[in-house]
Amino acid sequence: MCPHANGDSLPVEQQDMVPVNGLSSRPSPAKTNGINGTNGVNGHSSRSRSEAPKNPYAPRYADFLSNVSNFNIIESTLREGEQFANAFFDRETKIKIAKALDAFGVEYIELTSPAASEQSRADCEAICKLGLKSKILTHIRCHMDDARIAVETGVDGVDVVIGTSSFLREFSHGKDMAYITKTAIEVIEYVKSKGIEVRFSSEDSFRSDLVDLLSIYQTVDKIGVNRVGVADTVGCANPRQVYDLVRTLRGVVSCDIEIHLHNDTGMAIANAYTALEAGATHIDTSVLGIGERVGITPLGGLVACLYAANPEYVKSKYNLSMLREIENLVASAVEVNVPFNNPITGYCAFTHKAGIHAKAILNNPSTYEILKPEDFGLTRYVSIGHRLTGWNAVKSRVEQLQLELTDEQIKDATAKIKELADVRPQSMEDVDTVLRVYHTGIKSGELVVGESKIFDKLLSRHRESSASPMGRTPQPVDAVA
Amino acid sequence: MCPHANGDSLPVEQQDMVPVNGLSSRPSPAKTNGINGTNGVNGHSSRSRSEAPKNPYAPRYADFLSNVSNFNIIESTLREGEQFANAFFDRETKIKIAKALDAFGVEYIELTSPAASEQSRADCEAICKLGLKSKILTHIRCHMDDARIAVETGVDGVDVVIGTSSFLREFSHGKDMAYITKTAIEVIEYVKSKGIEVRFSSEDSFRSDLVDLLSIYQTVDKIGVNRVGVADTVGCANPRQVYDLVRTLRGVVSCDIEIHLHNDTGMAIANAYTALEAGATHIDTSVLGIGERVGITPLGGLVACLYAANPEYVKSKYNLSMLREIENLVASAVEVNVPFNNPITGYCAFTHKAGIHAKAILNNPSTYEILKPEDFGLTRYVSIGHRLTGWNAVKSRVEQLQLELTDEQIKDATAKIKELADVRPQSMEDVDTVLRVYHTGIKSGELVVGESKIFDKLLSRHRESSASPMGRTPQPVDAVA
Repeated sequence: MCPHANGDSLPVEQQDMVPVNGLSSRPSPAKTNGINGTNGVNGHSSRSRSEAPKNPYAPRYADFLSNVSNFNIIESTLREGEQFANAFFDRETKIKIAKALDAFGVEYIELTSPAASEQSRADCEAICKLGLKSKILTHIRCHMDDARIAVETGVDGVDVVIGTSSFLREFSHGKDMAYITKTAIEVIEYVKSKGIEVRFSSEDSFRSDLVDLLSIYQTVDKIGVNRVGVADTVGCANPRQVYDLVRTLRGVVSCDIEIHLHNDTGMAIANAYTALEAGATHIDTSVLGIGERVGITPLGGLVACLYAANPEYVKSKYNLSMLREIENLVASAVEVNVPFNNPITGYCAFTHKAGIHAKAILNNPSTYEILKPEDFGLTRYVSIGHRLTGWNAVKSRVEQLQLELTDEQIKDATAKIKELADVRPQSMEDVDTVLRVYHTGIKSGELVVGESKIFDKLLSRHRESSASPMGRTPQPVDAVA
Repeated sequence: MCPHANGDSLPVEQQDMVPVNGLSSRPSPAKTNGINGTNGVNGHSSRSRSEAPKNPYAPRYADFLSNVSNFNIIESTLREGEQFANAFFDRETKIKIAKALDAFGVEYIELTSPAASEQSRADCEAICKLGLKSKILTHIRCHMDDARIAVETGVDGVDVVIGTSSFLREFSHGKDMAYITKTAIEVIEYVKSKGIEVRFSSEDSFRSDLVDLLSIYQTVDKIGVNRVGVADTVGCANPRQVYDLVRTLRGVVSCDIEIHLHNDTGMAIANAYTALEAGATHIDTSVLGIGERVGITPLGGLVACLYAANPEYVKSKYNLSMLREIENLVASAVEVNVPFNNPITGYCAFTHKAGIHAKAILNNPSTYEILKPEDFGLTRYVSIGHRLTGWNAVKSRVEQLQLELTDEQIKDATAKIKELADVRPQSMEDVDTVLRVYHTGIKSGELVVGESKIFDKLLSRHRESSASPMGRTPQPVDAVA
């Protein structure tokens, strides 16, 4: 059993007592170039001991391989994202997206190969000239022609890729490993000679021969590549495979390790998290995950799981309250809706419904929340107008309405709300009406606890005397703001 | 390094050569009740040796703990799903959903507690009377009052839950472990005395004291519970934590192990997969993942990752071509859109765009696909009207249009498509126009390869003589049907 799960047995108050041997954390975006030697232990471990509030969701023990609190994001909306079926970015849109990502704080922005088309080349040059803080990369085939075009655009680095699996070698480019290695060396040395960063990535790494793969990575590491890239191009990998491959690679190369994960089986976020645990240093993302097919690790989802592990570190690196705006920008550019169940920004990501959930949330949001909505500029809601509601949630609304009712009376009113909600969803206005009529009845002496039929009469009388709009969708009530 | 990743180094043709010691696989929905003793090795291992086609995405070696090819789905759309903010299911809708899930083939359907409201109770009884093949469960608090109501509805089993974390013990029900254990025993023995299945689950398991947790699971296992449940109620777990906790539990209890995973950080699918690898037997899902906040492991996503591991097993259990219909049914009932990036049914899950992808897909779909669209009643598309297109994809369209062009001519026409797509996305109709005009020009002798300006003139002339509609969105072309 690994230390992580054992850690679950620690009482909360002991969870930040992590032995860290005096090594300091690295809260700022890390330019590592080595096998954790420069990384030290996880930033979160030493950090949480001295500064951060207790975080029961964080990894518990220092894991010397893990970069969960020491990573860089390579944001590929303008490269992988352009391969999304609906994507057509004109220059103005590309620049808007690049500026937004830069303001959010991603360490790298990756652009479509300037060899793809004349407009791609011109747009790449234009973005390089914006003077963004994020480093600008472009992504090219492992070919000297493409490399020559790329280095002339003014990019800070070039991401080189070639398919290494037997599938791609047979059905795509048709080259053998000797040819791949020879070309890779030529391209890498050329890019390096221009004084900019270079990454070498295999494609379809999880279906490549492991020995071939490690051999070529070792070769390019020795000639001084900045990063090697592992790519789950078809989305076939699972977390344990990712952990094992990255961990093995961590022992073979001394350069940084980037990972690119497709999301065909919905595991791209977890695979990215696990890759960091195994020692990867750079994660590829795109906004909303857009890319080929169902895309890659989404920026928002990655931020969600890394925030859960170490909120302070993630907050120190990224402007989290911009996330919704960036997602809306890209969603609009590619004409899709933000998924209802998107991590963080999905429209009910912070809505609590069941009675027992609502009760506990009102007592302490940490009971059912690992992400603080306020850290993302968002708000928590407790939904109460439904048959699963509980009197604690209703009590919170009673207090917001400044009605004076005892707990016994609130329980009585809650029973009526559940009864009505069994027939039809109750909007917030419906719930408020029930509570106000109940309150008036109690105060006037017409109503006492348990007199359901009298209450029904009071409600009918109220309805006759007013035209209460009844919404179809239950309206959430903000229970904390 | 675990055998999984090492397996990546096996040549494709050796991947099904798995030593299985003569144990037989269990392809049918499994009612296991024991520590893998009845499971044998993974079904997929022995199965693939003799029957199934080679599957390079599958786990490579027999893993004696793994139930990736031996699991049951507990479909909770009508319980967890009812806790989704937008959900209001009337009886007719509940019955439609239950029948659809039954036809799909899920082993269990879980319903809201009949103690939640009068309508919930009546609906539960009605669904029990449908005579479905799926077993019907209901989900109750660990309380005798709820248990008495539950067993009278006619369900096949009762899922009992109680919060065990210090958070929930403090801020929700306020009970200590001694009280929890005493009540659990009373409820379990009562349900068992009625001759139906009973599961005991902790809530918020990943923030519960490990010793408390194992202790109560061991106790209820000894008195004969059918399943123990592990729940990541707040969505804080990551794959390695899930693996470790389930694997530890697998050594402590002999009953089945169910897992319930919230998706707040987008890791619920991967966590479910990893739980099966660690020996879990039952996975909770809901359609599109609907539930509290952003919900739980989605049925479609779970099916996607398990299909990738063992297509034959998953196809033998479930009616996969119904997936889209079930998702549409539930999406419509709760008034959401199916996310554009949903595994399998997302609207471009099988759309390939980049030139190198399109080329390889046309040669062999396995190069970039781990899911066969036809197994889900869906179709593959290759998108070609954009600046990232390649001549191989265009050639496929030329063949569909039955135009006679040489490869050199197709490359020439492709250059024009890229040039036009740099300015504005090209619809399929636009692309077809380019190809037809090119073809006519070549056949008439007006055009030869490389004469871009002449081609422009021919295109202008064509546009003047016809009103070609120009769509905003690139139209995918079915390249294989």
